[in-house]
Amino acid sequence: MKFGRFTIPADNELGEKTKEIAKLWGADAVRDCDGTALPDDPKRFGKVYNTYFVVRGDNEWAKLHPEEAQRIFLLSDRVLATDDTVKIDIMRSFLKDEFDPDPVYLDRWEVYDRTVGEKVGGWSYDGKSGIVTVENVKKFHEYTVSFLARITWHPVQIYNYITNKWTCEKQLTYDPAFPNTREYIKRHMEEWCKANPDTDVVRFTTFLYQFTLIFNDKGKEKFVEWFGYGQTANPIHVDNFYNETGIRLTAEDFVDNGHYNNMFRTPTEKLKKYIEFIERFVSGTIKELVDICHKYGKEAMMFLGDDWIGAEPYGNYFGNMGLDAVVGSVGGGVTVRMLSEIPHVTYHEGRFLPYFFPDTFFDGNEENAVKELNKNWLTARRAHMRKPLDRMGFGGYLSLAAKFPRFVERVAEIADEFRDIYDALGNGKPYCRLKAAILNAWGKKRSWMSHMVAHELWYQSIYSYQGISEALSGLPVEVEFLSFDDVKNGVPKDIDVIINAGDAYTAFSGGEVWLDENLQTSIREFVYNGGGFIGVGEPTAVSANGRYFQLADVLGVDEEIGFTLSADKYNIEKVKHEITDGIEKFDYGEDKKNIYALKGAKILDVAFSDRFKRNFNVGEVKMAVNEYGKGRSFYITGLPYGFDNARFLYKALCWTAGKDLFVCYSSDINTECNYYPESKRYAIVNNSGENVTTDFYDINGGKRSVLLKPMEVKWL
Amino acid sequence: MKFGRFTIPADNELGEKTKEIAKLWGADAVRDCDGTALPDDPKRFGKVYNTYFVVRGDNEWAKLHPEEAQRIFLLSDRVLATDDTVKIDIMRSFLKDEFDPDPVYLDRWEVYDRTVGEKVGGWSYDGKSGIVTVENVKKFHEYTVSFLARITWHPVQIYNYITNKWTCEKQLTYDPAFPNTREYIKRHMEEWCKANPDTDVVRFTTFLYQFTLIFNDKGKEKFVEWFGYGQTANPIHVDNFYNETGIRLTAEDFVDNGHYNNMFRTPTEKLKKYIEFIERFVSGTIKELVDICHKYGKEAMMFLGDDWIGAEPYGNYFGNMGLDAVVGSVGGGVTVRMLSEIPHVTYHEGRFLPYFFPDTFFDGNEENAVKELNKNWLTARRAHMRKPLDRMGFGGYLSLAAKFPRFVERVAEIADEFRDIYDALGNGKPYCRLKAAILNAWGKKRSWMSHMVAHELWYQSIYSYQGISEALSGLPVEVEFLSFDDVKNGVPKDIDVIINAGDAYTAFSGGEVWLDENLQTSIREFVYNGGGFIGVGEPTAVSANGRYFQLADVLGVDEEIGFTLSADKYNIEKVKHEITDGIEKFDYGEDKKNIYALKGAKILDVAFSDRFKRNFNVGEVKMAVNEYGKGRSFYITGLPYGFDNARFLYKALCWTAGKDLFVCYSSDINTECNYYPESKRYAIVNNSGENVTTDFYDINGGKRSVLLKPMEVKWL
Repeated sequence: MKFGRFTIPADNELGEKTKEIAKLWGADAVRDCDGTALPDDPKRFGKVYNTYFVVRGDNEWAKLHPEEAQRIFLLSDRVLATDDTVKIDIMRSFLKDEFDPDPVYLDRWEVYDRTVGEKVGGWSYDGKSGIVTVENVKKFHEYTVSFLARITWHPVQIYNYITNKWTCEKQLTYDPAFPNTREYIKRHMEEWCKANPDTDVVRFTTFLYQFTLIFNDKGKEKFVEWFGYGQTANPIHVDNFYNETGIRLTAEDFVDNGHYNNMFRTPTEKLKKYIEFIERFVSGTIKELVDICHKYGKEAMMFLGDDWIGAEPYGNYFGNMGLDAVVGSVGGGVTVRMLSEIPHVTYHEGRFLPYFFPDTFFDGNEENAVKELNKNWLTARRAHMRKPLDRMGFGGYLSLAAKFPRFVERVAEIADEFRDIYDALGNGKPYCRLKAAILNAWGKKRSWMSHMVAHELWYQSIYSYQGISEALSGLPVEVEFLSFDDVKNGVPKDIDVIINAGDAYTAFSGGEVWLDENLQTSIREFVYNGGGFIGVGEPTAVSANGRYFQLADVLGVDEEIGFTLSADKYNIEKVKHEITDGIEKFDYGEDKKNIYALKGAKILDVAFSDRFKRNFNVGEVKMAVNEYGKGRSFYITGLPYGFDNARFLYKALCWTAGKDLFVCYSSDINTECNYYPESKRYAIVNNSGENVTTDFYDINGGKRSVLLKPMEVKWL
Repeated sequence: MKFGRFTIPADNELGEKTKEIAKLWGADAVRDCDGTALPDDPKRFGKVYNTYFVVRGDNEWAKLHPEEAQRIFLLSDRVLATDDTVKIDIMRSFLKDEFDPDPVYLDRWEVYDRTVGEKVGGWSYDGKSGIVTVENVKKFHEYTVSFLARITWHPVQIYNYITNKWTCEKQLTYDPAFPNTREYIKRHMEEWCKANPDTDVVRFTTFLYQFTLIFNDKGKEKFVEWFGYGQTANPIHVDNFYNETGIRLTAEDFVDNGHYNNMFRTPTEKLKKYIEFIERFVSGTIKELVDICHKYGKEAMMFLGDDWIGAEPYGNYFGNMGLDAVVGSVGGGVTVRMLSEIPHVTYHEGRFLPYFFPDTFFDGNEENAVKELNKNWLTARRAHMRKPLDRMGFGGYLSLAAKFPRFVERVAEIADEFRDIYDALGNGKPYCRLKAAILNAWGKKRSWMSHMVAHELWYQSIYSYQGISEALSGLPVEVEFLSFDDVKNGVPKDIDVIINAGDAYTAFSGGEVWLDENLQTSIREFVYNGGGFIGVGEPTAVSANGRYFQLADVLGVDEEIGFTLSADKYNIEKVKHEITDGIEKFDYGEDKKNIYALKGAKILDVAFSDRFKRNFNVGEVKMAVNEYGKGRSFYITGLPYGFDNARFLYKALCWTAGKDLFVCYSSDINTECNYYPESKRYAIVNNSGENVTTDFYDINGGKRSVLLKPMEVKWL
């Protein structure tokens, strides 16, 4: 039993048992959670973490300065004009407790004719009824109002309040964009530090601006975007941004036709600049709070979530804040890597799952709780083997977990395994067989954040892309995130394979950016000279110049969108290939229809309708490879995460990169091999709950058989 | 046993048996076919049809005037530039016997940088090697040559030649765009008429320009477009068109990025004008040949196929030719209606299936031959009940059919049934419950030709749309084909329901035409005031103004193309509805993914992934209805033809039109009811091979039970 790197959620209701569990788990820190209070004398458990809110929690201040509330531009419902005048109840589908229209800035509101996408004048707002009346409208056009609103209830508290049926006071918001509030939050920080001498770590939950989270009139979530800058729409920011850059943002820049600039929309240049502007403001402001923490001998830890907007951990200004640590929820390998690779902080902590809440910890559910724990650990462990977090922990009510002794015991084992892995890896970088780059509109700034809706909620349209990141998080592959701008004048020399994955026209596939000839030629040249290219879903897609996939020549496949039905397609035969060798059934997730192969490409899998038989024109390609000059490409319609698919992706990466697969390799798909050159140690990992015998190939290709117990990590 | 309305393919090898069968079938006309000769004294069988070719068949003339061959613009392969110079072997993927590059008009050739879609100069052509060399190209761009070629082998003969392994002379082409050839074809017509006094009907197969049919270097079909004007690209036409309209067509107008202006591409205004120009030329020229036929007492019949380009039967110039008849192959109900509704001719003839060829008529296959005959008859019969052809017939070798006595007998029965139906209908119009319009870019000109690849080949991407026309061809619905131009300033008063069906951006869905505010408002107004709207697949789709389906408000559904994943969708519950009442399993054919319902719409069917459970955001809508003002809409992802789906479409039509279903209605889905007001007769049709008892509702809604024998038409 080892000690340290573990934060326990302490619970004053549990009494002495806390100490026992803390010891069993080797906890060296204690934290409070929503709804719990720390035990007396918390320091006896180690370091003490306390939650801290910057822009909510002090309703007294907020009530004194209602004009300094946070702001957002909201888009009303579309209303059909059936007459010369149209009346729009702007708040109709919004939660009235969350937002209060702000007519002080009426000049910044916009009425749009959405049928033609044009701003119109000739309207008025009646504050009493909340109705905007637009005169002289065009019949059977649809109209909207984009209006500025004060945020009068913090969205995260709304979520907790409604979910847990709370009856406490509704937390207002305040915005340090206003100098008055900015001074206030510093004062408050100072006072809080003084009042909390026991606190070692200030766990910021989080900083200044909540991600976009809009509730509807029924109190249900209406729109959620974990990357949304909607709540930064303070007129002071908009004006300062104009003064700094000459770019005048309008309501439409925020509401974006109702899309609210979500991550799937290719960001405009002005939006990218605005994000940087907010990052500078947030990091500058937070720096002052962090300095106060340091002055009082406390560490500053950022929770990656909630009000994290403007604190982009992979952005250019993150380091300026001077933070000591980050913490985040660990949903799988992707979240481990998203957290563990954040630069400029001393340590990275993960809050493991399951959360100690009654939804899992109820009588008779111990087996499931253990199962969930194991599943999450096995999924996350793949990523820890590549780049571990520095600390682990749990959240919720410890008293609930304490009722499940097998669960408590299993956490202890996992904590030890976590510490073992951490110690074994040291600071040495694990061996990477090759370097892959995920290419999208966001690049480095959104490293490991590709294809996320909300904070990684499952969504039908994207799990087949998100599976790529999840697979990569545990593969012996160096991963970089590149933006289209990063490669359009040449692919960085150290990249072996470029991956472009996503639905057509999204920021991840790229859409119209592929009309840029420099981007096209840069990738073509890279592949032609020996590089690898992997396309998933609708890579490089934009309908132009006779093609849908602009790099169809590189990929060897294109998508039939209805314009080339009259062109005969003879390449519909599946061929054997080393990538698919030994794999019979494939999981394409959401899949893509109507993909066809060009001449010369090799089809690794193809589907046929059971409605019609023909020896051309009727096959739908699911997977193909192509040779292009000295380089190679691989295409697949979708790649949800699974053992097969992770292996599959790895084989495709090696093949496109022209690398021998059988180096630091474990053949059974339930297993993976990690090699640590500094310590010259191999870790063969069994991701499954079964005994597995696998062939293991060392760095020189030497092969031997290895037997692994369920979930075992075998060090060689 | 009745007589007439029947053309038999006579066969001099069959001898006296011909007479017997002709009598059995009630044949009153005889025709020759490829590979057969008419018996001696053919007139004893009735009218004599002879095949006639206008622009092929006389290689002597063609060889004397090689410069008067037909022309086409071809697009070379795309060739990647990996250096400063790129060399393009222009004929590399074409059949060298079919085309001969024509450097006489080198000034009309175009070299394109397809990476950026720009025409480039600085190239030269070497006629010996067939290579175009382009200097100073941009590295890693792709280049093509659009070159004019002489058509040196008639494409239809290529097809027959290769398919049947012929060794006869390859037929050259000649083009009456050249005045010399134009005079010649008249002379030839006159001589032929003189030389063939027995011929009563000149069966033109067909006129001047073959639909686009390009073979590849392996002698396989490379591109086929039944509506293609590619083979009209004679420089004389292009120049005359310029002189007439001021529009100078270039090679790119013909090759269209490799799409060769197929039917799925929204036609440009200049293409539409050019089609009309060619129609005028063809009808003017053919008029002179028809006059010659008439002068010799012969009728002129057009085969709708092969060289039918420019003879658009629903175009504005078709009537000018003075034709007596049309004939075409009957594949199903759509082809019946496509033929039977052609204006300006005295009679319409259908060549029924199966063709008397050895692929069906081989020893031991009689049962299948009868089955195919029945299946085709039952499918086509639905359309005959609405608007019958005037004559039927068969093609191929009668000697083959003669070997199958049950087949011969069944043809006799069908011929009688066909004549019965024809007589029963008279000239009276059957009762139509409502009037529906198919709305697409082509409108009336391509009536009953919607969603055709080649000449109605099955294709994966479109059978789910083509099923709509097939269903309509036999429904008690008046059908009109409207173009977007026809409705953008108001929907014609007599339309009850508008149908828009197709994949996004195709000419059938409409693509960017939906950005036209007049089109949008016109349809909105129509529905709002009580009209019906049916969308299938991706109706009104174009990504703009925050929507994909521009009439999402009317339809109550939109497609998630990746930009609104962050917006919550709660409307995912299936509700009961009269349209789906009694139907449990639906066939959406190719289907569409990611359709979601807006607030207020009613979902009639929705699919859920088995991967994730959630009570919002995860349902994929397959079918929905919406109320919009006084009007109604119906959406479905796809509608391949089948008894269920035909019924289903009819129910949706009645519901959206606000019409009571139970009028002139037969409840069992195997049956359909037709009513003929003039004769006050009802025909209850059993489309199935089973006995069926159905509820029949008369024009006043009076209900009674009717028993139908297999395949029976019961007249009441």
